[in-house]
Amino acid sequence: MNEKIDNIKKLIVNKPLKLDCGKTINNYPLAYATYGKLNHNKSNAILIFHALSGDQFPSGINPITKRDGWWSTAVGPGKAIDTEKFFVICANVLGGCMGSFGPNSLNDNSHKPLSTNFPVITINDMVNAQYNLLDHFEIKELFCVIGGSMGGMQVLQFVSNFPKKTKTAIPIACTASHSAQNIAFNELGRQAIMADSNWNNGNYDLKKDLPSKGLSVARMAAHITYLSKKGLQDKFGRKLQKREDVKFSFDADFQIESYLRYQGSIFVDRFDANSYLYITRAMDYFDLSKQFGGNLSEAFKKCKAKFLIISFTSDWLYPTSESREIVIALNSIGADVGFVEINSDKGHDSFLLNVPDFLNTLRNFLINNFN
Amino acid sequence: MNEKIDNIKKLIVNKPLKLDCGKTINNYPLAYATYGKLNHNKSNAILIFHALSGDQFPSGINPITKRDGWWSTAVGPGKAIDTEKFFVICANVLGGCMGSFGPNSLNDNSHKPLSTNFPVITINDMVNAQYNLLDHFEIKELFCVIGGSMGGMQVLQFVSNFPKKTKTAIPIACTASHSAQNIAFNELGRQAIMADSNWNNGNYDLKKDLPSKGLSVARMAAHITYLSKKGLQDKFGRKLQKREDVKFSFDADFQIESYLRYQGSIFVDRFDANSYLYITRAMDYFDLSKQFGGNLSEAFKKCKAKFLIISFTSDWLYPTSESREIVIALNSIGADVGFVEINSDKGHDSFLLNVPDFLNTLRNFLINNFN
Repeated sequence: MNEKIDNIKKLIVNKPLKLDCGKTINNYPLAYATYGKLNHNKSNAILIFHALSGDQFPSGINPITKRDGWWSTAVGPGKAIDTEKFFVICANVLGGCMGSFGPNSLNDNSHKPLSTNFPVITINDMVNAQYNLLDHFEIKELFCVIGGSMGGMQVLQFVSNFPKKTKTAIPIACTASHSAQNIAFNELGRQAIMADSNWNNGNYDLKKDLPSKGLSVARMAAHITYLSKKGLQDKFGRKLQKREDVKFSFDADFQIESYLRYQGSIFVDRFDANSYLYITRAMDYFDLSKQFGGNLSEAFKKCKAKFLIISFTSDWLYPTSESREIVIALNSIGADVGFVEINSDKGHDSFLLNVPDFLNTLRNFLINNFN
Repeated sequence: MNEKIDNIKKLIVNKPLKLDCGKTINNYPLAYATYGKLNHNKSNAILIFHALSGDQFPSGINPITKRDGWWSTAVGPGKAIDTEKFFVICANVLGGCMGSFGPNSLNDNSHKPLSTNFPVITINDMVNAQYNLLDHFEIKELFCVIGGSMGGMQVLQFVSNFPKKTKTAIPIACTASHSAQNIAFNELGRQAIMADSNWNNGNYDLKKDLPSKGLSVARMAAHITYLSKKGLQDKFGRKLQKREDVKFSFDADFQIESYLRYQGSIFVDRFDANSYLYITRAMDYFDLSKQFGGNLSEAFKKCKAKFLIISFTSDWLYPTSESREIVIALNSIGADVGFVEINSDKGHDSFLLNVPDFLNTLRNFLINNFN
């Protein structure tokens, strides 16, 4: 997989970036993909931020995994984020494992992966790195910044850092501050990875003996949080996996067990354990209010963008109440903000799935605010 | 620890028990503890069933761990389950690791632990094994069967199996059928244990190289489900662990991380990984409705006990809606049933904590129905 990743599109950023941890990086790769065409006056660009397990390929077929892009429901020709109308840019986040500077990047001298020598990064660092894409494409103002989950956190950080660089902003199913329960689930995932003897303090060989069992458990844990209790019950309930009755063993008797094992097993083929540690850490550190002395409104004070905040009724990872806090902060400074809570049983994952009310909301907002 | 366990009180059951898996066991140990005194007409006995991580020591100081009994808030002299008034019996469940027949029990011939040669057991098997304690104490009818979480499932199974053997029954914070999400979290825990290379297909040496990392991760996962999102936020929020600011590392920066790591680390000193696999499996297999062709009311048809069903508002593992299903099934056959939903932010764990409304409800029900 690694050699393939070496050949994908990258911007080498030749501008020093001071990270929140204090270190400065320079000449680092930022892997990205684009869809559609930038129009003459460069007014149709949408920057999509991906979530924890995402990458720079929201649409079409992912050239590395050969699977559908992670946001194929929403992004493509004729879709809600219409690539026949808009120029879509998406970058692999700093710390990621799809070509951007991350723990898999090689040390210049030893030619070994940086692994845990990679600096601990933040959502702020991710956004600052991706800002370089605007310079690269000579875009003065984006039409929209959009993302769900961790992508939504990046949207909030982007408008805070670059208040005049986007016309609209759509943070979806996210929060302005990671909760104790959010941190708890991420820590669970990290401990599962670190418990794998193959993890070896981060110094595993990328070509063999990967900490796949630990990463798989981490993914299973995360996956449960992406689905609602009702959604799980409706889809799986107590249905058995290709058997008439339970087998009195530790096999996957139930479909839900088989499903989770499968989700874990396919994840390790496309994702790196150290990247998982770094990106979850960045999420846990995210607290936009704290950056402004506890006053979230201050984060948006200079921003003239039009906001659309979207949450889902059954999302218990980033529940509607947390989106409402963002809306309240925006309202209190008279920002232009719309708020939609979409009815869905599909939990946090709703933003990635075919939820017509959501996709129509997105489409209409984009069309009505363009031009 | 094992030698200490060898010396605790045990009933050796000399009566064959046909397990749900088809195997028959006999001459097996059932470790138990009692509190208070059995009165002259043997009318004051309460059988307490423990939850997944519990044991036969709900009250006083646990002689093995030297910590407070797991239900010290509720059980003891003058407490809601008053051991000055009632004779309390509690047994370690079949499959447990506190002296009852379980995966740590030795094979008669090889003198090695049975480990995964131990049969897969069910809640029904657990209850049938514990029924032998009534014969042992020559108790014709219990005053009460009571338990929370998996203990509550045993209460439901007990009244179904032995409808005339208890005067009252109190299932707390439980369900009549494990949901897909319940199974998912248990499977996550099992996979975490099995991912630990020390687990070695269950054949680890009980004196060294235990699968502690995997068991610790399993416990962390379970612990998150025992607490409510609001409870976690109120108690921990984003508070840092003995530091002014985050350290940009994978240390436990946040108190919630430190707390979870601690919960994992102390659990492995008192609990066995294989027992964890077997007991979670029994929980997942629990579906009382299915035992009666999908009609839960049938399970209680012959039972004349007075029921008190208790749930907690913030319990998302076994939410009130699942207790309500039990109440509906009991009501539909005209059973004597009371139902209380206790207001608490403390999640599923509420039944183990000092929640005055809950403890008073328990106390009053027991006192008013005794005599």
